[in-house]
Amino acid sequence: MSTTAEKPAPKDISYHFSRTAKKRLPSQVKRFYQYFAIPGIGNLAGGLPNPGYFPYDTLEASSALPDRFKPTPNKPVDPPTTELSRATLSDGPSAARVLVPHDSAEPNLLRKIDLTTALQYGTAQGYPPLYSFIREFTQNYLHPNVPYKGGPEVILTCGSTDGFSKALDLFSNIWDEDRDWIREREGLLCEEFAYMNAIQTAKPRGLNVVPVAIDDEGMLAHGKGGLRDVLSSWDKNKGKRPHIMYTVTMGQNPTSGLLSVKRRKEIYAVAQEFDVIILEDDPYWYLQFPSANALSVKAKGKPVSSNFPSDPDHNYNTSSGGRSTGYPFLDSLVPSYLSIDVDGRVLRVDTFSKTVAPGCRLGWITAQPAVVQKIQLITETSTQQPSGFVQSLIAELLLGPSTHGDPGKGGSKDGSGWGIDGWVRWLEGLRGNYERRMQIMANILDEGQYLIQDSPRRSSISQSDADEYQVLHKTQLYDFAYPMAGMFLWMRAHFETHPLFGKVPGPRLSQALWIFMTQKPYLVLLAPGTMFSPTQEIMEEKGWQYYRLCFAAVDDELVEKHSRGTVAAFADFWAIDDVHKIDKLLEDSEAESRMAALEADNSGSFATNPIIC
Amino acid sequence: MSTTAEKPAPKDISYHFSRTAKKRLPSQVKRFYQYFAIPGIGNLAGGLPNPGYFPYDTLEASSALPDRFKPTPNKPVDPPTTELSRATLSDGPSAARVLVPHDSAEPNLLRKIDLTTALQYGTAQGYPPLYSFIREFTQNYLHPNVPYKGGPEVILTCGSTDGFSKALDLFSNIWDEDRDWIREREGLLCEEFAYMNAIQTAKPRGLNVVPVAIDDEGMLAHGKGGLRDVLSSWDKNKGKRPHIMYTVTMGQNPTSGLLSVKRRKEIYAVAQEFDVIILEDDPYWYLQFPSANALSVKAKGKPVSSNFPSDPDHNYNTSSGGRSTGYPFLDSLVPSYLSIDVDGRVLRVDTFSKTVAPGCRLGWITAQPAVVQKIQLITETSTQQPSGFVQSLIAELLLGPSTHGDPGKGGSKDGSGWGIDGWVRWLEGLRGNYERRMQIMANILDEGQYLIQDSPRRSSISQSDADEYQVLHKTQLYDFAYPMAGMFLWMRAHFETHPLFGKVPGPRLSQALWIFMTQKPYLVLLAPGTMFSPTQEIMEEKGWQYYRLCFAAVDDELVEKHSRGTVAAFADFWAIDDVHKIDKLLEDSEAESRMAALEADNSGSFATNPIIC
Repeated sequence: MSTTAEKPAPKDISYHFSRTAKKRLPSQVKRFYQYFAIPGIGNLAGGLPNPGYFPYDTLEASSALPDRFKPTPNKPVDPPTTELSRATLSDGPSAARVLVPHDSAEPNLLRKIDLTTALQYGTAQGYPPLYSFIREFTQNYLHPNVPYKGGPEVILTCGSTDGFSKALDLFSNIWDEDRDWIREREGLLCEEFAYMNAIQTAKPRGLNVVPVAIDDEGMLAHGKGGLRDVLSSWDKNKGKRPHIMYTVTMGQNPTSGLLSVKRRKEIYAVAQEFDVIILEDDPYWYLQFPSANALSVKAKGKPVSSNFPSDPDHNYNTSSGGRSTGYPFLDSLVPSYLSIDVDGRVLRVDTFSKTVAPGCRLGWITAQPAVVQKIQLITETSTQQPSGFVQSLIAELLLGPSTHGDPGKGGSKDGSGWGIDGWVRWLEGLRGNYERRMQIMANILDEGQYLIQDSPRRSSISQSDADEYQVLHKTQLYDFAYPMAGMFLWMRAHFETHPLFGKVPGPRLSQALWIFMTQKPYLVLLAPGTMFSPTQEIMEEKGWQYYRLCFAAVDDELVEKHSRGTVAAFADFWAIDDVHKIDKLLEDSEAESRMAALEADNSGSFATNPIIC
Repeated sequence: MSTTAEKPAPKDISYHFSRTAKKRLPSQVKRFYQYFAIPGIGNLAGGLPNPGYFPYDTLEASSALPDRFKPTPNKPVDPPTTELSRATLSDGPSAARVLVPHDSAEPNLLRKIDLTTALQYGTAQGYPPLYSFIREFTQNYLHPNVPYKGGPEVILTCGSTDGFSKALDLFSNIWDEDRDWIREREGLLCEEFAYMNAIQTAKPRGLNVVPVAIDDEGMLAHGKGGLRDVLSSWDKNKGKRPHIMYTVTMGQNPTSGLLSVKRRKEIYAVAQEFDVIILEDDPYWYLQFPSANALSVKAKGKPVSSNFPSDPDHNYNTSSGGRSTGYPFLDSLVPSYLSIDVDGRVLRVDTFSKTVAPGCRLGWITAQPAVVQKIQLITETSTQQPSGFVQSLIAELLLGPSTHGDPGKGGSKDGSGWGIDGWVRWLEGLRGNYERRMQIMANILDEGQYLIQDSPRRSSISQSDADEYQVLHKTQLYDFAYPMAGMFLWMRAHFETHPLFGKVPGPRLSQALWIFMTQKPYLVLLAPGTMFSPTQEIMEEKGWQYYRLCFAAVDDELVEKHSRGTVAAFADFWAIDDVHKIDKLLEDSEAESRMAALEADNSGSFATNPIIC
C-alpha cells in the first residue's frame, strides 16, 4: 500500500451529476460568515429563535454499557447459547446515564455538546461533535485504506433511505415516456432480488431498473446475466446504458449474500470499464457471521462460498497491504467497495438503524469530497440536518462531556463517552446476538429440509441424516445458504417436488403455502419472494419460489418456535394432494384482500402501516 | 357557516401533480398488513431489528412548564417589561421531568409512547400519538373552519424546508434549458422579497421564479405588479403561466408582513381564476403582535395597515361565521389561507422550529387528503419519518403517559402532558416575549430615524419630536413598518438623502454602510436586503436599499444595545462626505472576501456554516 502522498486523486465524475445537481451552487450567504466571527459583534442578521425559549432544559437517557451483550468470537463456531447475554445483563448494573446539558462552556464546536447548539439551526454536514466522531470512525476504522488521495469525506443523512434518495437526486435525471426520447432514459443496476424501497425510489423517476444475476455471494461480474453481460449487450433501444448501480453487499436484503473481495474486484473492474457509479448500501456491514461457512461445511459438506479465507484470523486490512484498525473485529470484516475505489466512483450510505435503532433516522454518506459537497447542497434545501435530539443524544453517548465546564454525561459508567473502543465493542455484542439467532434458525431449517416419503409416518430430516438413511424417496422441500451476514435467511421452496406441481401453477402453490403457514397451528408470517422482485419478469420467472425469513426481530425462543413452525408447515403442505384444498386456501385469501382494499379506501382513519425493511 | 354535511368536497387537483408524483403508487406491501394482525402470528416477514438491542433504555428531559413565560394580553399595548418573564421564572420550580419509558403496556397505538415503538421503524404519517395530537390541534384549533368536506389531513415532515421540498416534488416538473422547450417551463410565484432557501430549492429544478409586488401586509392581489397583473399579462415566451405560489403570510421573512383576511380573499380569488396552488409557509403564525398597529398610530399617526380590525377583542373564527376554538388567543390570530380554501388548493407547511426548537427538524403538512396521500408516498422513499427521538420526547411532553401500565411522565408538574391547554399557553408566553422584544427594537429605531442637520451637534430624533421642532433640515435616514408578526424588522435606508448619493452608486453606499456597522463602536450585523431578492432585477433595483433586523435571537438588553448601535451607525454614516472613506470601507471588505474564498477552498476542514433563516 502506497503512502498518502503517492495516492492519485479521485477522478472528476461531475459529468455524471444530474442536470438539477449541476445547477446547485453554494449559497451566497457564505461570504458573510467571516463577519459572524468579529469579536463582540451583535448579530441581528440571523433568523434564529432564542435558545432560552426552547422548552427542553436538558435531554437525558438511560443507556446500555458497551459490553451489555456477549460477542461471538471470530474463530470458533459459537454454540447458540441464549443464556450468555442474559448472564451478562444480570451481572450488575449494565446501564449508564446520558445527559445532554443546556449549556456547555467548551469553546471547540467539535467537542461542545449542549442543547443551545444541538437544538438551534445547524450545519448540513451534521452536528459538529457527532460529525467529527463519524468522520474519524469512517476514515480511520471503517475504511482505513481507501486508495485515493486524501480519502473520502462524510455528511450526515436522515438514514439510508434519505441518503439513497439524495444520491439518486445527484446522479440521475428524471425521465418520462410521454415527454422524453427513449435514448434519454437512464438506468439503475441492481441485484436480481433487491430491497424494494430502493427500487420504488427509482421507478417514479422513470429509471430503467436493470437486474443483474446473483449467486449466494451477490452480484455476478461475469457469465450469463452477470454485470459484464448486461452492460456489454446493452440494447440502446431501451435507453442509455445504465451508469449507476444500487447494491447491498453485506447481508444483502433479501438474500443475505456477502460479497467477497475477489468478487468486489471483478465487479469494480467492470464498473470502471463501463463507467458505472456504485451506490453501496450496507446497513448490516458489522453483522458478518464467521460461523456460517463452518456450519455449512458441517451440515452440507461445503462452505457457502469458497471465495472466503478459511483462516479465522484473516485480517482484511493488513492482508491487502493496508493498515490495521487495531481492532481484530473490524479487521476481520470484508471491507467496503471503498477499499478498492481508486477512481472515487463509490458512494456509500450508512445508517444507525441497525446499530442503534431505526427510529433514529440517522445515517451518513461516504464518498469523494466533490460528491459529498453536492450532497450537502441537496441537504441544505431539503432535510437541512438530522434532528438535534438524536444527534446530541448519540454524540453524548459516544463522546461524553468535554473538560471545559461541561455538566454533560456520556454512556460509560464513569460518565465519559463510549469512544471508538466502546462503539466497536457494542457492535461486536450485537453481532454476537444476531449470529446466535442466525444459527438457531439455520440449524432448525437444515434439519427439516427433506421429507422421507417411504417411512410410515412422513417426517422431515436433515441432509446428513438423509444421507445416512439412503432412502429412495427423499424429497427436498426447500434449500438455503447459511447466511454469511445480515438479518435474513433466504430460502427457495422446491415446488417442483410437490405432489400437485403441474396440476397447480407454481405461483399459485407458492401463494397457498404462504397462506397455509399463517394458519394454525403454524402461525408464521414469511416475506414472499415476489416482494423482492425488481421486475415483473423476475417475479413471474422465479420470485414466487422464494421466501425471506428474518431472524433478527424476535427473541431466541420465538426464532426457534417459528422456525419449527415453518418446517412443520412445509412438511404438511407437501402432504396436500387435493387441488381443492389449494383453491380453498386462495379463495379465503382473495376475499380477505378485497376486504382490506375496502378498508384502505376508508380514508381519515389512522393506517398503521409498518414499513417492511 | 354551513354544517359539515353541506360542505362541498375539495376539487380534484391531481392534474397539477408532477410526472414523478403521478407515477408514485401505494406500496404493494399493504395487502399483507391484514396478516400482521392475526393473533399469535410469528412475524418472520418484517426486517426489524430487535428492540431489546437498542442502546437506549429510556429517554428523559428536563422541560419547561407551559406558563414559564408571561404572555402579552391581546388588548393593551404591553410595556416592554423584561422583568416579567424573569419574575415568573424565579417564582418557583418552572421545570418538569419528561420520561419516555422503554415499554408501555397501552394497547392503543395512538396513546402508546415508548421506545419500543418510537425507535422502531414507523409510519410515514408520523409517530401515531404525536400524529394524532397534531391532527387534532390542526383540525380543531389551528384551522377549525376549513370550508371543504371532511377538512384537511396532516402528515409529519422533517421541518418546513423538508415539507416545502416535498411539495415542490409533488407540484412541479424539472425543466432544463438545454433539453426542454421553453413552453414546458413551470413557474413559482413568490413575494418580491422572499426567504431565499425556498427560492434556492426551486431554482435548480429550472422553475421560473416570479416575484409579485408587496406592501407592508404582503402580496398585492391587484394593481401594478400584483398577482392579477403578473398572471393576466403572462408572456408565454417565458414558459408556462405559473401554477404554484410560495408565500409566507404571517410575519413574512424578511418583511414581517401580516396578510389580512381581506387581502387573503382577494389573492385567493385570483388564485382560483388562474388555477394556482398556494404553498403557505407560516412558521411564525402564533407570533402576531396586536400592539404593532397601536404603536404605529402612537409613533406615526397611522396604523401599519387599516385592513385589520381595531377591536382588540376581534374573534376571527366567530366573526367569519365559524366556530370558536375556545381559546381567545387562537381566535385572535389572523387565520391561514386554509380558512377560505373552498377548492382544496392550499398546502400549508408548519414547523416546530420556532415553537420548540429548530434542531427538532420536525413539522407537518396540512392539505386536502389526496394531496397528503401523495406526500406520504414521497416520504416513504425519502425521509421515511422524522426521528423517533424528537417525536417521542415531544409526544410525551404534550400527551404524557396513558393510564395502562405506562411508567412515562409528561411535561406538567403532576406528570401528565401539557395537552392543548398547555400548548396554547406556551405559545402565548413565547408570543409575549417576542412581542416585547419587537417593541424594544421598534421604539428605539423609531426614535432614531431622523437626523436634525441644522443643530450644532447632529442627532437623530423621532418622528414626533421632529414634527415638534419644525426644522428645515430634517433628514430621514430610514423607515420601517412596525412588525405585525414574526421575528424581523425590515427597514429601508433612505440613501437618497445621503450627502454622497449621486457621487457614489446606491448599492456601493449600501454595502459600505453594512461594513461600517460591523465596525467599532457599532459592532452590529444586519442581513442585507440583497440576500432576500429572488431575482437579479429586484436586487439591483431595490434590494440594496433594505436591511433585515432579527429581534428574536438575542436577549432584551442586547436587542436594545444593538438597536442603539444601528441608530448610531446610521447617524454617523450620514456624516461621511468623503468618497475615499467609502472606497476604504469597501476595499477592506473585498480583501476579506478574497481571503474567505481562499479559506473555503481549503476542504477537509470543518466549515461552521450557520444556516441563516
